[in-house]
Amino acid sequence: MTQRRYLLSESEIPSHWYNVVADLPSPPLPPLHPGTHEPIGPEMLEPLFPMALIMQEVSADRFIAIPDPIREVLAMWRPTPLHRALGLEAALGTDCKIFYKYEGGSPAGSHKPNTAVAQAWYNAQEGVKRIATETGAGQWGSALSFAGSLYGIDVKVYMVRVSYDGKPARRSMMEAWGGSVVASPSIDTNAGRAILEKDPHSTGSLGIAISEAVEDAATRDDTKYALGSVLNHVLLHQTVIGQEAKKQLDMAGAYPDVVVGCVGGGSNFAGIAFPFIADVAAGKKLRIVAAEPASCPTLTRGHYGYDFGDTAGMTPLLPMHTLGHTFMPAPIHAGGLRYHGMSPLVSQLVHAGIVEPVAYLQNECFAAGVQFARAEGIIPAPEATHAIRAVLAEVEAAREAGEPRTILFNLCGHGHLELGAYAQYLAGDLVDHELEQSALDAAADVIKGMPAIA
Amino acid sequence: MTQRRYLLSESEIPSHWYNVVADLPSPPLPPLHPGTHEPIGPEMLEPLFPMALIMQEVSADRFIAIPDPIREVLAMWRPTPLHRALGLEAALGTDCKIFYKYEGGSPAGSHKPNTAVAQAWYNAQEGVKRIATETGAGQWGSALSFAGSLYGIDVKVYMVRVSYDGKPARRSMMEAWGGSVVASPSIDTNAGRAILEKDPHSTGSLGIAISEAVEDAATRDDTKYALGSVLNHVLLHQTVIGQEAKKQLDMAGAYPDVVVGCVGGGSNFAGIAFPFIADVAAGKKLRIVAAEPASCPTLTRGHYGYDFGDTAGMTPLLPMHTLGHTFMPAPIHAGGLRYHGMSPLVSQLVHAGIVEPVAYLQNECFAAGVQFARAEGIIPAPEATHAIRAVLAEVEAAREAGEPRTILFNLCGHGHLELGAYAQYLAGDLVDHELEQSALDAAADVIKGMPAIA
Repeated sequence: MTQRRYLLSESEIPSHWYNVVADLPSPPLPPLHPGTHEPIGPEMLEPLFPMALIMQEVSADRFIAIPDPIREVLAMWRPTPLHRALGLEAALGTDCKIFYKYEGGSPAGSHKPNTAVAQAWYNAQEGVKRIATETGAGQWGSALSFAGSLYGIDVKVYMVRVSYDGKPARRSMMEAWGGSVVASPSIDTNAGRAILEKDPHSTGSLGIAISEAVEDAATRDDTKYALGSVLNHVLLHQTVIGQEAKKQLDMAGAYPDVVVGCVGGGSNFAGIAFPFIADVAAGKKLRIVAAEPASCPTLTRGHYGYDFGDTAGMTPLLPMHTLGHTFMPAPIHAGGLRYHGMSPLVSQLVHAGIVEPVAYLQNECFAAGVQFARAEGIIPAPEATHAIRAVLAEVEAAREAGEPRTILFNLCGHGHLELGAYAQYLAGDLVDHELEQSALDAAADVIKGMPAIA
Repeated sequence: MTQRRYLLSESEIPSHWYNVVADLPSPPLPPLHPGTHEPIGPEMLEPLFPMALIMQEVSADRFIAIPDPIREVLAMWRPTPLHRALGLEAALGTDCKIFYKYEGGSPAGSHKPNTAVAQAWYNAQEGVKRIATETGAGQWGSALSFAGSLYGIDVKVYMVRVSYDGKPARRSMMEAWGGSVVASPSIDTNAGRAILEKDPHSTGSLGIAISEAVEDAATRDDTKYALGSVLNHVLLHQTVIGQEAKKQLDMAGAYPDVVVGCVGGGSNFAGIAFPFIADVAAGKKLRIVAAEPASCPTLTRGHYGYDFGDTAGMTPLLPMHTLGHTFMPAPIHAGGLRYHGMSPLVSQLVHAGIVEPVAYLQNECFAAGVQFARAEGIIPAPEATHAIRAVLAEVEAAREAGEPRTILFNLCGHGHLELGAYAQYLAGDLVDHELEQSALDAAADVIKGMPAIA
């Protein structure tokens, strides 16, 4: 019988994170001070992050050792299995070999704990007792609440109001791990109060929640800030995914023609893809595809330039693809992909032509998710259905080209907390939001005046 | 570093199910015809089950081979990991070694797919195109919907009304896999209509839903019935859990002093415990503990005799511990443990003094679940928190006795679909339901006149 799952032992949890910065065609551009537009140095980030993470943020070392105490905690669910999608291959009648790395077996049900544990551990090492963060759909807030519970760190989560109201189960999950959750915009910060003053019924956004969490951390001596995606050190921590996958593909005697991940801020995508960028840099031929929502098409239709990471304009300016920091994405169910910006590293790789972005509407993604669930059992998180939709396109392209391909994708989480979205899809009640040109024009206005990328 | 998880390869999925009937101190008593009170033969079950499953139901063979196509599907998530609870041990400051088998990584998030896949496969082999079943909290209906989707079998689920209304996510999960779900009592069956006539607002019960599903299958030529617990062949299919656990404990150089599982109908408990009953039969000294809710204390306070498996009295009479087939359990969150009866095999083992039953109230179980989640990451299903509560009692007893013990328990599912229950617990809103003597007296009336067990 053909093997379905490739497992690694605990000792095979990668010993190092892989830092793609070492293999970029050119050095990454620095973040800029929002006022002076001058590059900011590590010391300016100190109010927000522990120094060890800041050093990772600016490192150009190809490999960074993973401390043993972090590997010991990752062993709660890592190494994760690599699945051969035998059921999906049969359902599609394809000669392609489809593999997926499954990250939904973590305590929080997604890849997010990979960096949450690392960040919480480094904070604990530097004596931090409280961390503020934001969460959209709730995956990141859950992961950090879990990680905080392991190290006795209080976690305060600013949860986008529309999710806070619509996803009570996510809130309960964070609270089960001891996290404190408030709806954002909240009355707990100046940023939140300012927005509520203008619009008492604001449903919030990830950008607003980031402003609140950053303000919380910046104004309290006992508190640091943590981000679940976008930044270099966050993506770094996810590279255990792709490193494990490479080893597991070796066991299967396979190597991918194409690697696929969904992208919102970039972290699960980086996790699966970056270790393969090293191969691209070494001359290997393979394609790397980033799948995003057509309603929030940062990479496929956004502007490549400097912009704020948050809505209120409190963060440094980041060099990235952006729809403008005031962009309000349509209320699609893949909450983790609703972000106006993008990881600078992923943006740079797209700009350099190394990563291909594609965009899909949510109904076609849910259709792919249902097809996957009925063939492979696992019900994917709405975010992950974007990767599956892109895989179906690859299978179709392979069929047209008459060449079987080996496809690897990241199944970054399960959908057990997003089943209401599936119900809406099955009832035919889901709306597709193709972004209008007028929204892009408005975005162009917002970023006018920002420093350009040469 | 001490190993956290013990993994087996796909080829180590057990080749046989273990049938505890071969190791019972006396042969099991037969089911009886509800009218004649005569033992019923296999042929009388034919309208409800495929013949292969009926043969398993009445088999006394110690081992029954698992067909390769079933093992190939189990490989989607099996072998499941055995965890060493290093985090919980540290939190408790105990010298005990605590191990748990984690069944929450299956597509449906519990152990139920172990038998759902087997049952669906045998039905498919005999040409069955439609299966009717019942579900309480939704775990079983989800598992069978998943299994049905793999074999092109339509699954009709009668879901207890109170769960249907309160757990829309479970419904959506079944529908994502293609299952059809109706609230029970429904207008689709005579049993359902009769109950609705008397009480149009009936919130249903597992016993009522069983009546409906059995009637559906019995009155339609194209339809068979499937049960998620209680019956011998269902428990048989779960024994992959304990067999794997034994091999994994060997890897850890450990053997349990005590094996713990929660019990409702008996299937996850049998899964972890029955393979150790073989050791008891061979003279090994170990204790086996079954943890049930104090609000539905079938084993600790029920009557041991013949009773119906359902409310309407359509099933054969089963020799088991029972609170009376019309018993309505309190609305605790561990829906999978709300059943008036018990597996005849588990009942017989309790009656023989081989299995020790214990009972706990739901608040102390949720407290144990939260402690577990904060130490081990995984948020347990409410059912599984009963096993964890019993483990805490074992740790305490070991401390008092001054002897470190090795404890194995089954973590039969995750709680990602039951987070509302955790929210209620954390808010202090959960009610404890200790069963009143008057309810037991009423139960005694219901089973008066049933055949006694000699």
